[in-house]
Formats: sequence, C-alpha cells, structure tokens
Amino acid sequence: MKSIYVVGIGPGAWEKMTIEAHEALKACDTIIGYTVYIDLVKDHYPDKEFLSTPMRKEVDRCVLAFEEANKGKQVAMICSGDAGVYGMSGLMYEVGEKYPEVELKIIPGVTAALGGGAVLGAPLIHDFCLISMSDLLTPMEKIEKRLEAAGEADFCICIYNPSSHKRKDYLQKACDILLKYRSPENVCGYVENIGREGETVKVLTLQELRDTEVNMFTTVFIGNSQTKNINGKMVTPRGYRNV
Amino acid sequence: MKSIYVVGIGPGAWEKMTIEAHEALKACDTIIGYTVYIDLVKDHYPDKEFLSTPMRKEVDRCVLAFEEANKGKQVAMICSGDAGVYGMSGLMYEVGEKYPEVELKIIPGVTAALGGGAVLGAPLIHDFCLISMSDLLTPMEKIEKRLEAAGEADFCICIYNPSSHKRKDYLQKACDILLKYRSPENVCGYVENIGREGETVKVLTLQELRDTEVNMFTTVFIGNSQTKNINGKMVTPRGYRNV
Repeated sequence: MKSIYVVGIGPGAWEKMTIEAHEALKACDTIIGYTVYIDLVKDHYPDKEFLSTPMRKEVDRCVLAFEEANKGKQVAMICSGDAGVYGMSGLMYEVGEKYPEVELKIIPGVTAALGGGAVLGAPLIHDFCLISMSDLLTPMEKIEKRLEAAGEADFCICIYNPSSHKRKDYLQKACDILLKYRSPENVCGYVENIGREGETVKVLTLQELRDTEVNMFTTVFIGNSQTKNINGKMVTPRGYRNV
Repeated sequence: MKSIYVVGIGPGAWEKMTIEAHEALKACDTIIGYTVYIDLVKDHYPDKEFLSTPMRKEVDRCVLAFEEANKGKQVAMICSGDAGVYGMSGLMYEVGEKYPEVELKIIPGVTAALGGGAVLGAPLIHDFCLISMSDLLTPMEKIEKRLEAAGEADFCICIYNPSSHKRKDYLQKACDILLKYRSPENVCGYVENIGREGETVKVLTLQELRDTEVNMFTTVFIGNSQTKNINGKMVTPRGYRNV
C-alpha cells in the first residue's frame, strides 16, 4: 500500500528531531512542507526532492502530497513541532478521505510547549492547557472562554501564536482575563525562536507579561498558583502537597 | 561547571527518542532512572553505569543524581515521555536548590499525548488540556474542577493515569463529568502501551469510554465537539470554520 509520512520535525534545531523522524526523511524521495521548515532540514537530506506551497495554502500542500504519492513516490510531509499539535496530520486525514489508497504514518515530534518549557526550566510539570490565540479559524469568544476556564481551574497554560502584525494586543487581552483569577505575581515566562538562532528566554510576572510586547516567534507560559521562580528558572511542582 | 542532563526518552521505542537525547546518553558516564525506563534504553548504551531507586523514591533519585555529579561523573537522569510533563525536571530543580554548583540541561521528548495521538490519528490538533487523574499529590476536587472547566470550554482533553489498582472507577467519574457538557457521541480514543510491545488502540464514543475499564498503561483522549471518526482514525479539525 502507498503511504505518506507526516513528520513533526521538532521546534527548530535538527537534533531536536526524533530518530524515527530522521529515518523517515532518509527513507523518502520527496519532502513537502512550508518553505521555512524545509530550510531547517534541507542540508541534512541533500539528495531529496523538496516541494512547497505558500503559507496558508495548506490544503493545496496536502493535495500535492497525495498526488506525488500516487505517482509512486515515497513522500514525507513535514511540520514544525509535532505533526498533531496545530500541525498537518489532521488536515492530511481530512483531505485523505479522497485518497483511500494512501495510508498515513504519523511521526510525532517535540512541540513548542515542550521545547520551550525545557529552555525555561519546568513550567508544565503539572496539568496544563495549550491555547492558540490565532482567530483565523476559531471565533475569539471561544478562545476567551478557554482562557477563562484555564485561569479559573488553575491550569498551567501555554499560549501559541500570541501575536502577529494584525493582533498586537491579543496577549494583553489574554493576561487581562487571567488576572481576574490569578495573582499579578503569578510566575510566567516566554521563549523566542526555540532551538534556533536568536533564542531568547525570560521569566517574569503575569503583570509584567501583560505589559510586554512579544513577536510571532514567541511561545508564552503561564504558571499555576504553585509555580516558582528558582534562580531564574520557571518551575512548577508535581502537585499541591509537600514533596 | 558540573552539569546533569535531564532527558525525556519518549513514549517507548528507542527510535522515538530525539537525536539530542541520544547524544546526551552517549556522552554521559551514568544513567539514572526508574528501572522500567532503564530497561527501555539499556541495550543501546552497554558501556554506561546504570543506577536506580524504587518507584515513589523520586526525591532520593534526584539526590543520587546530584551526589554522583559531585563525584565528577557526567550524569543523565531519564524519564519516560518528556522530562517536563509530569517528569523529573521540576523535582530536579527543587532538589537542586541545595546543589548550586550543578547546572541542569533539560532535553525534551515526545510525551504520551503526542505519541499516543499519532497512533490514534490527529486527536489534539486544536487547543487541548492535559489532566492527570492521579490524586496522590493533587486533591480530587482540583482534578474534578479541571475536568469541568475543560468539558465546558470544549477543549480536546488528554488524560494521563486514568486508572490504577486503587482507582478503578476514576475514568468513569471523569466521563460522567464530561457527559454534563458533551454529547454521548463525542469521539474519544485510547492507546495502551504506546510505542511498546502490545500497543493497542481504540476509537469509541464518550458513552462507550465511560463503560470501558482501562489499565494503568493507557492514555485516554477526548475529542472536542468537532472531532470526527474518519475511517477509524480520531481527527480534530484545525478550527470551527470550514477548511
């Protein structure tokens, strides 16, 4: 049976990819992905064919993958982070309903919540929520409702897509919702360019985060009520009882 | 400066480890971890020293790591999945306050939510919560509050530790809470022994999940209101608008 690998390549640096992902990329003929991600892996697989479609042309990219597979090529579709967290695996299954002759093999990877968490310390040790601030496909009321719920139930929270050219004040809005339930001193952090050139990291309070402008390459972390700043690292304990 | 690697080895099979994790294990003298995880990696690093402490002796295990590092050994502390998701990195920072001369290098890995998600299809494509049902260190009221919040705000949910010898009915309790907010037909799934021998996978409805007994090696997935069963795969769309 024909198959396509859908591969999460991790948060940036090539070494953050799994061994399984590396084996899949070595074994394929054609690597398809958004140009930024192709640039991250290209030098490691010089003998492969690379294909791409522009940003926001994700459906076209999926169709391209199935069409190439049907030509008899072993295709790998790559995504940054994990294939299944705001990644391409869902859309590949949806588009794939028209291509029942092609099987999908999903290869997971380290998503930014985990990659960024490792840089900050241990912010997500306990129950957490992952919320994207992108309202392209999700109504803002839904996003706000999730922030309210996560704030009230004392989840650690990791925020993806906290900012863009058009959405400069979204992180501020999110912090204002969380400040209804959390102390202004609640420990927070953010990481820019995880595992890439220019990686920067900052641990700060929720109030300070509210007044910070982050860019679109930033992943934001909100601790729960127990999260501590230990010598500049953001650390959430394993529970609510003493160790 | 002395350092300890805290390494997430992924959900099971060795290939699901990152290249960075493999490099760290190759570079160290001593690998410390719970015996089950040591057994998963042992054959790949035959020339290393392996040390362990019994289950629930996590603080002793951390102290052991720092003491060995202080003897001049390069130590790697391993955890299954990711080092920072219910992993050892948080406790290592807490215990490490007494060992300021030792730096921690956290190496992230694929946690069961991502590894299991890849087996099921694409259950966590959109905003999700990770909740552990273990009430050893967290009061049950807190866990229930989080299930309520996640249910109401239409998050995808991944449940860790859904069952144990003493907590046979916890998953049923969790499903009963979610059924207050979700349809009995809400698409769900679970994976046993992710990436290991005996891996089994099942896609089913929330009502069916409620009436299923899972074991302690199981990771459970609850879709959001948009999650679909596409030819036996659990697939969550990217948002609430048409593709």
